[in-house]
Amino acid sequence: MNPQVKAVEYAVRGPIVLKAGEIENELRKGIKKPFTEVIKANIGDAHAMGQQPITFLRQVVALCTYPNLLDSPSFPEDSKKRARRILQGCGGNSLGSYSASQGVNCIREDVAAYIERRDGGVPADPENIYLTTGASDGIATILKILVSGGGRSRTGVMIPIPQYPLYSAAISELDAIQINYYLDEENCWALDVNELRRSLNEAKTYCNPKVLCIINPGNPTGQVQNRKCIEDVIHFAWEEKLFLLADEVYQDNVYSESCQFHSFKKILYEMGPDYCNNVELASFHSTSKGYMGECGYRGGYMEVINLHPDIKGQLVKLLSVRLCPPVSGQAAMDIVVNPPVPGEESYAQFIKEKESVLNNLAKKAKLTEDMFNQVPGIHCNPLQGAMYAFPRIFIPSKAIEAAKVHKMAPDMFYCMKLLEETGICVVPGSGFGQREGTYHFRMTILPPVEKLKILLEKVKDFHIKFLKEYS
Amino acid sequence: MNPQVKAVEYAVRGPIVLKAGEIENELRKGIKKPFTEVIKANIGDAHAMGQQPITFLRQVVALCTYPNLLDSPSFPEDSKKRARRILQGCGGNSLGSYSASQGVNCIREDVAAYIERRDGGVPADPENIYLTTGASDGIATILKILVSGGGRSRTGVMIPIPQYPLYSAAISELDAIQINYYLDEENCWALDVNELRRSLNEAKTYCNPKVLCIINPGNPTGQVQNRKCIEDVIHFAWEEKLFLLADEVYQDNVYSESCQFHSFKKILYEMGPDYCNNVELASFHSTSKGYMGECGYRGGYMEVINLHPDIKGQLVKLLSVRLCPPVSGQAAMDIVVNPPVPGEESYAQFIKEKESVLNNLAKKAKLTEDMFNQVPGIHCNPLQGAMYAFPRIFIPSKAIEAAKVHKMAPDMFYCMKLLEETGICVVPGSGFGQREGTYHFRMTILPPVEKLKILLEKVKDFHIKFLKEYS
Repeated sequence: MNPQVKAVEYAVRGPIVLKAGEIENELRKGIKKPFTEVIKANIGDAHAMGQQPITFLRQVVALCTYPNLLDSPSFPEDSKKRARRILQGCGGNSLGSYSASQGVNCIREDVAAYIERRDGGVPADPENIYLTTGASDGIATILKILVSGGGRSRTGVMIPIPQYPLYSAAISELDAIQINYYLDEENCWALDVNELRRSLNEAKTYCNPKVLCIINPGNPTGQVQNRKCIEDVIHFAWEEKLFLLADEVYQDNVYSESCQFHSFKKILYEMGPDYCNNVELASFHSTSKGYMGECGYRGGYMEVINLHPDIKGQLVKLLSVRLCPPVSGQAAMDIVVNPPVPGEESYAQFIKEKESVLNNLAKKAKLTEDMFNQVPGIHCNPLQGAMYAFPRIFIPSKAIEAAKVHKMAPDMFYCMKLLEETGICVVPGSGFGQREGTYHFRMTILPPVEKLKILLEKVKDFHIKFLKEYS
Repeated sequence: MNPQVKAVEYAVRGPIVLKAGEIENELRKGIKKPFTEVIKANIGDAHAMGQQPITFLRQVVALCTYPNLLDSPSFPEDSKKRARRILQGCGGNSLGSYSASQGVNCIREDVAAYIERRDGGVPADPENIYLTTGASDGIATILKILVSGGGRSRTGVMIPIPQYPLYSAAISELDAIQINYYLDEENCWALDVNELRRSLNEAKTYCNPKVLCIINPGNPTGQVQNRKCIEDVIHFAWEEKLFLLADEVYQDNVYSESCQFHSFKKILYEMGPDYCNNVELASFHSTSKGYMGECGYRGGYMEVINLHPDIKGQLVKLLSVRLCPPVSGQAAMDIVVNPPVPGEESYAQFIKEKESVLNNLAKKAKLTEDMFNQVPGIHCNPLQGAMYAFPRIFIPSKAIEAAKVHKMAPDMFYCMKLLEETGICVVPGSGFGQREGTYHFRMTILPPVEKLKILLEKVKDFHIKFLKEYS
């Protein structure tokens, strides 16, 4: 048994989710509970919560899957145009062929064009684009390439706390060193460069810090970094020769009027040649989040710049062992970066569907923040972006003792009770990391508005009862 | 830079394939060559070679992708029935939801039912089925779980030589020890248990051998193991407490009249409770090979039996970090294990398409063997199964010297020259491993018959010229 595998933890699908599965089975068998269904607010899985797929995306993928449909009058011409182009990029014009390990060429070209548009003309080279099996695969692969050494020269990887546990899991698996920097909860989960510096200097005494991971918009914390903050981070990475890893899968999920998404790539270029010719940066995107929520397709890409040519060769080699990312996921990614444009037949419907999803999410972000903050003993920062609330919860000392008896972290104890009493499945903050003595949970805002309201009411009632029970 | 990553080699997409890509670019730019196209016979990529998808499989996946089509009269009822069933197993009835990490439940049930049918009623439990991102992902994951230790207690993994280089690459990445056992070229690449024993005993002096990998039908060697041989291997694994890893992705690709595919699982059960309750076995299948050739979907499954419950828990956790295999690939896998049956509307067409592919492959297997064996200095064993020829080639000592000057392995030198002079891309035997002093290459038999004939003629002419040039 591999000890590094043993050390891996992944709370988003951890013990609480296994328990939720058991409860679902019991409900199916007719066992009575104080609720009739389990609501899985543990994972950002939009379609599972009833969100409808973007029609255009599915039309194109269906056409690629079964090209006989290219003759069907019920598919719009712009979807056929895209499907033909994707198929021309595939061996034998088939989604069933392996693509190049780096991904289908024309899709990488579309990704590069998307990045250039998004970043106001900053150049993007298709040679620096790698299609991936979801963003997770890209992140794990880049970390695998960068990690090395034993003892005090073991590679250190800086990650935010709270973090998305893919990071800690990949670091465990690779036997690298996790370096925590704390986001500032009092300041709306902002990233402070002084905290980066503290954490780095401490880490230098016991490992070799080489990578700095940023999640923007934040998961699980939902903050959106402002321009100044990104500039500070880039300057810090440049100064300290850190490889920057920018997880930007929530780039379309920004809700606060006062916030805007800035890509690390764009700011890096705007900071001038000293930075943009030197700082190594990998940034990630995915089909799973945004307005499309196509998690099951496992589509994604990464853009990697300033990578040393030798390391680039190693990266391509490593990717080639797994042959290629799923080609249907690549096709889905293509539509995310190459959607209908004004003048095209599908444009109006596409925009309507996209805006409906995003406006709904914005509404739910505000609703969640407001309702949580009405509950005594719960404090929730504004959900500026992404798709989660990460409220801080007060857990009385009697409950902490009770948790100890059950050999659970206090917030795990809280979330287990919430699940058992209400059927609501959320993930304890301890699965993401949090400052000692503070407790949180992560909940998605994906259920439909009416359902989300009921869910938030239930959490409120549970919390008040919990406080009473353990006061 | 991770030194284990540096150590990885993967010849199937190695330097010769990069060179092929360069030549293709030159051809596109109008640079004159002695040929007009590069023929990529380096990789088992059926659709890229012109094989058509199985209609029924694509119909079901298209219906799942774009469920509006469920109302279309141009899709047969049996394809709709399957699509509805798959969608009911998906969160929110969408391919865009994450599935359980182990895969969609009803698809795992279909896989288990398929295995029971295939193995004449030997029971299969859906709980032991894990859907994967192609077989490669499953193999790499199982190896990751099993590997541990440093120094003389490092895990040893026994692999055939010649092997499929995914194995050596995964072993390098995991910093485990590769233990070679040689297949018997003189005896049609048969596996001999005495050779297993020799190789194991030798390895015991420097590592802790724990895993025995078998590829049946063989890749790159094309042999099909007989029942007696499988029994011997199982007995050996039982005796030596080795974890058996049976790569059976070519189970539908058996061409020799005298050969039949036997699954390790079936034989294990027929050997009785002492074996089937104790020997740990993981066996693998895929959408990529067989008659469907759906490589791009990255569909696959593994069945793992007699795994210790603790290790099983670790396996599920490890899979959960990557969330789930691509759901459209899972849907494709479902159709491979649950194809149309007699009485269903699509049965006749399905069988016609399936048999056409397999009969063609059988014809090409014989053609390839016969034509290679007519060339002086080439010897080719019968292609009993899989989709490759692995002929032995005589390389004159003058050519070996010339290769040395170019710092290449002699068979790499040969294959590079073949590529440059004819446009035919094959993989040198050194990428798979071979007995010292012998030389081979791997070539797929996937091009259409007429093209394959031309290709084999070209190899013949090249070989004769090569022998003259270096004699």
